[in-house]
Amino acid sequence: MSDRDSIEARKTQAAAWFEELRNQICAAFEELEDELSTVPGAPLAEKEPGRFERKSWERKDHDGAPGGGGVMSLMHGRVFEKVGVNISTVEGRFSPDFAKKIPGAEADPRFWASGISLVAHMQSPLVPAVHMNTRHIVTSKAWFGGGADLNPMYPDEQDTADFHNAFRSACDRHDPEHYPRFKAWCDDYFMIRHRGEARGVGGIFYDYLESDWERDFAFTQDVGRAFLEVYPKLVRRHMHRPWSEEQRQHQLFRRGRYVEFNLLYDRGTRFGLETGGNVEAILMSLPPLAAWP
Amino acid sequence: MSDRDSIEARKTQAAAWFEELRNQICAAFEELEDELSTVPGAPLAEKEPGRFERKSWERKDHDGAPGGGGVMSLMHGRVFEKVGVNISTVEGRFSPDFAKKIPGAEADPRFWASGISLVAHMQSPLVPAVHMNTRHIVTSKAWFGGGADLNPMYPDEQDTADFHNAFRSACDRHDPEHYPRFKAWCDDYFMIRHRGEARGVGGIFYDYLESDWERDFAFTQDVGRAFLEVYPKLVRRHMHRPWSEEQRQHQLFRRGRYVEFNLLYDRGTRFGLETGGNVEAILMSLPPLAAWP
Repeated sequence: MSDRDSIEARKTQAAAWFEELRNQICAAFEELEDELSTVPGAPLAEKEPGRFERKSWERKDHDGAPGGGGVMSLMHGRVFEKVGVNISTVEGRFSPDFAKKIPGAEADPRFWASGISLVAHMQSPLVPAVHMNTRHIVTSKAWFGGGADLNPMYPDEQDTADFHNAFRSACDRHDPEHYPRFKAWCDDYFMIRHRGEARGVGGIFYDYLESDWERDFAFTQDVGRAFLEVYPKLVRRHMHRPWSEEQRQHQLFRRGRYVEFNLLYDRGTRFGLETGGNVEAILMSLPPLAAWP
Repeated sequence: MSDRDSIEARKTQAAAWFEELRNQICAAFEELEDELSTVPGAPLAEKEPGRFERKSWERKDHDGAPGGGGVMSLMHGRVFEKVGVNISTVEGRFSPDFAKKIPGAEADPRFWASGISLVAHMQSPLVPAVHMNTRHIVTSKAWFGGGADLNPMYPDEQDTADFHNAFRSACDRHDPEHYPRFKAWCDDYFMIRHRGEARGVGGIFYDYLESDWERDFAFTQDVGRAFLEVYPKLVRRHMHRPWSEEQRQHQLFRRGRYVEFNLLYDRGTRFGLETGGNVEAILMSLPPLAAWP
């Protein structure tokens, strides 16, 4: 295969994985929606189990040329108050100003990017909210990035340990330096700087991963699998527990902090808005309800 | 008087005005809280009328030196769901990066700034939310800025006309070019760019006003007086009307847009966060409850 054929084959392979992961995650989350009513007295079990609704969108590049698109999957359920699982594959040319900030785009502004992005805001204040995202970006360079972080309203030591261990295992299978580096990066990144507060209890964050394509892709796949393994376990652990109005109010307050981070600091949000991404898809991460009392 | 004495006298005069305006506005808003129960059947009239609570804060400059401070006035009432009226008078040195963006601070980073800032989120979705802010900033230059914009959930022609007319009158008393220029600036500034939507129905916005100090200060005082004249009138017009749950949901949705603007684009928010302002005071503008359904 020529270099160009090989790059194209890799793009196809990465985009197909993000789609496959989306399918697996949506199926696992719908299973949780069904499961709730199997435990007598579970809160909100009288509601219908939620189902994802899909909506596709197309992107135009800034010169009006076709620029790819994506599919949003959104569910309003009885376990998941609002969860979005978005995939997108976009391509085009960065604007000159934006190109300066992106590796490999200084001389040639063409880019291709594909990824999956997920944010779950839960009905129960006792079930942690979560974010997960992995992506492959191709300019004159080609790299992977992503991560996942847990956002409990009431941090729980076992949840935090399980979440971190899942991603530590995924990391350790590929490179012993990944976990310590990507955990620290996560802590640094998900910092609400103006408040000097962490957004949640961390996880991993990585970007510009460009060692060996096969190895980086395999790692990125394992990040997705680790998420799929650990998060439903945490949801199952807490989703049947009743909660108080005071706990609900605390959840809405914590979600306000989440909004502050996403609109003030989140790079994915800024990247999306600055590259003419789909506003509805980008801001699907915002919580269904949030309070600044 | 020497130039320096005159600058100091002007600072004192401006800061005193912002404090006086704060007192007048808080009194007028508490009067509205009291008035609600004089009309039989007014929504939430069974609640206690709200009262402002004041909280002062001190600012340290980035080198740890004293840097002024402010007073927040916050009320959670039965007409005003959450309203903050903040005054502050701060001084210090801009960080080198920030100084480059501020007129008159390139060579000498010292600054002094005083102002009043108000955001009201109302219980009733039929009463428009509002923002008003005026300020005086002194570097090696000295200018006034400010504005007010109306944010109805359901725009009402008469409200919009009354609001604009009040500020048009204030403008016209000082310069016939003010109103057209400052109205257009407001429309341009309060644009939620990623959505291509206006935040509200406009008003006026001005900055870097440095023609003649006495004249600019008199204009800035009249902007405050225009607000005080017109906004309580709009509140009185609608506060007794019952509303539906659907209207309440629409209000929460519109407040989400307000949050997006404030965190993504608002210069006052960014100025405050970047100059080490009081986070609680700066983000008092965020609504008590907002939805992204």
